[in-house]
Amino acid sequence: MAFYALIMAGGTGTRLWPVSRRQRPKQSLKLVGDRTMFEHAVDRIAPLFQPEHILVVAGSDHVPDLSQQAPELPPENFIVEPMGRGTAPAIGLGAIHLHRRDPDAVISVLTADHFIADVERFCSVLGAAEEVARENYLVTLGIEPSAPSTGYGYIQRGSRLCAVDGFEVFHVERFTEKPSEETALQMVESGEYTWNSGMFIWHVERILEEFEAQMPDLRVQLAEIEAALGTHGYGPALDRVWKRVTKESIDYGVMEGAEEVAVIPVDIGWSDVGSWGSLGELLARMGRRDDRGNVVAAEHIGLDTANTLVFGHQRLIATIGLNDMIVVDAGDAILVCPMEHEQEVRDLVHLLEREDMKDYL
Amino acid sequence: MAFYALIMAGGTGTRLWPVSRRQRPKQSLKLVGDRTMFEHAVDRIAPLFQPEHILVVAGSDHVPDLSQQAPELPPENFIVEPMGRGTAPAIGLGAIHLHRRDPDAVISVLTADHFIADVERFCSVLGAAEEVARENYLVTLGIEPSAPSTGYGYIQRGSRLCAVDGFEVFHVERFTEKPSEETALQMVESGEYTWNSGMFIWHVERILEEFEAQMPDLRVQLAEIEAALGTHGYGPALDRVWKRVTKESIDYGVMEGAEEVAVIPVDIGWSDVGSWGSLGELLARMGRRDDRGNVVAAEHIGLDTANTLVFGHQRLIATIGLNDMIVVDAGDAILVCPMEHEQEVRDLVHLLEREDMKDYL
Repeated sequence: MAFYALIMAGGTGTRLWPVSRRQRPKQSLKLVGDRTMFEHAVDRIAPLFQPEHILVVAGSDHVPDLSQQAPELPPENFIVEPMGRGTAPAIGLGAIHLHRRDPDAVISVLTADHFIADVERFCSVLGAAEEVARENYLVTLGIEPSAPSTGYGYIQRGSRLCAVDGFEVFHVERFTEKPSEETALQMVESGEYTWNSGMFIWHVERILEEFEAQMPDLRVQLAEIEAALGTHGYGPALDRVWKRVTKESIDYGVMEGAEEVAVIPVDIGWSDVGSWGSLGELLARMGRRDDRGNVVAAEHIGLDTANTLVFGHQRLIATIGLNDMIVVDAGDAILVCPMEHEQEVRDLVHLLEREDMKDYL
Repeated sequence: MAFYALIMAGGTGTRLWPVSRRQRPKQSLKLVGDRTMFEHAVDRIAPLFQPEHILVVAGSDHVPDLSQQAPELPPENFIVEPMGRGTAPAIGLGAIHLHRRDPDAVISVLTADHFIADVERFCSVLGAAEEVARENYLVTLGIEPSAPSTGYGYIQRGSRLCAVDGFEVFHVERFTEKPSEETALQMVESGEYTWNSGMFIWHVERILEEFEAQMPDLRVQLAEIEAALGTHGYGPALDRVWKRVTKESIDYGVMEGAEEVAVIPVDIGWSDVGSWGSLGELLARMGRRDDRGNVVAAEHIGLDTANTLVFGHQRLIATIGLNDMIVVDAGDAILVCPMEHEQEVRDLVHLLEREDMKDYL
């Protein structure tokens, strides 16, 4: 009857191009301080979980690098996804591994590439969430919104369920997709909504039941892999099955349709570090903003430059007359983009894919 | 009674930082095509001047490099300036060398770092100017203005003097400094003004007389150097004298106060390539502008990018949502600057000097 962490380490962080790449994904980048995002993710749960109780789901390309970043984790705790299929299959794969180890496991599904400033409070809320999960709830951590962001999904709380260790726990009324600006403003003003952090806590049997009820095809596919667990047939079974698995997010595949879902609203200094603007905000919160509003992580010289993020790589970056801009040097590629266009970095990466500019992907 | 070219190859082209540097001045850069600006300057006068008749004034740091770029020029034709003292002393130094070689020399004072598209017409006008100079005029080439630029000095023509080889020659009414926008517009609309190209043609004795009349201190200093010409004492005399020479431009020191000055207005596709905007305009004129108005000399990928100059160095430059911007990668330094701030690149270089960031100067 143990508590496990299952760190989701797939994805590449497309909107942080040109620093993030397929072979140098966001979780392996030192975006904040001198630790990678994945190292931060492992470090911050060390007070709560033995290394043996921390599992990681990642693509085969990335496992060697992640394993070197967290040598204290047993090698067998790195669960390889043959290819990315979204969070629902990744969580399912982790769940069958954990179910085999401990059918009474409670799992914290955590992220490898987000930042959390208040580590102590984060560990406290995970402890509280575990208790709620033992009551057979699907528990999610809801981030108290600091702004009406349109970049996150939102969770509407319903009636109060209980309080654990000082944390208020609510029934979830509903999950919503990324909203329009107007809707986001209404939601934040109502006080009923928190951001969907992508962090979930549940009993392993509860989540497998949900897959059975809501994603029966996936459950059958997981069962086929489960049958080969611990045998030489595991790898081939995984490869064979995974090709047929449908891509799906846990939000859409499970959370939106589930009953008995709880949310614990928390303020833990969370950032998804999902874009250059988001990283800039985070670094600013950490005192890295100068009196002109610039956030500089580079050798930089500027004239008449304000509210600009300058992220560098050994070279000097000189700016004149910039406001609300992003300038990023990643060594072999440079990005220049107004802050308001930051989401389009993803489109640029898609353009690189279409143009088959593999060196820069 | 020969015709000589005296190419002024001092200066560094500060406003083309970060590509131009003290040790990599503008005249040694391949800004247009695959020849350096200095190579262009020597190539285009080859039909008119024997290599023996082409002299170059440059700083001692730059002579070896320039000499390699023009191996056909005799080594003794590179005249070393111990330090930059402006165009008047540099022209004076060239003049005493030429006077010693040929007291009846006519000198074309030419620039090492400007671009001229219509080389044939340029050579023709120099031939015409030589004839006028033999009549003892100080002759200047006036560039027919293509826009009311505030970046150049202007020359107002007076009465018509003559016509030579189809070129109209005018008395100069006056030289003016760089004007305000309003004044520039008035001057261009009047049809009486041309840009001051910094190219002059005169008899060697006439210019030495002008120094004697208008810059007597300089004339005495030049005489001191002249006395040591061809002896072992030349280098020490030059070094000793040059330290005391006052910095001055030929425009202010001689042209503005001289009588019997002639201007030949010409349209030779001239550009001073003095700034990133100027280089962008030149490359655009040469067909390098795309249908979004961008001028790209780099590996570039852009989304929603228009009217932007992208000048690169091996690396990929990605731009999103830019308009009227300058993005330059020089290998060890990057510049990002709106086109309207292009003149402030000079201020940035001065800031680098004040901050003692020598690696980038």
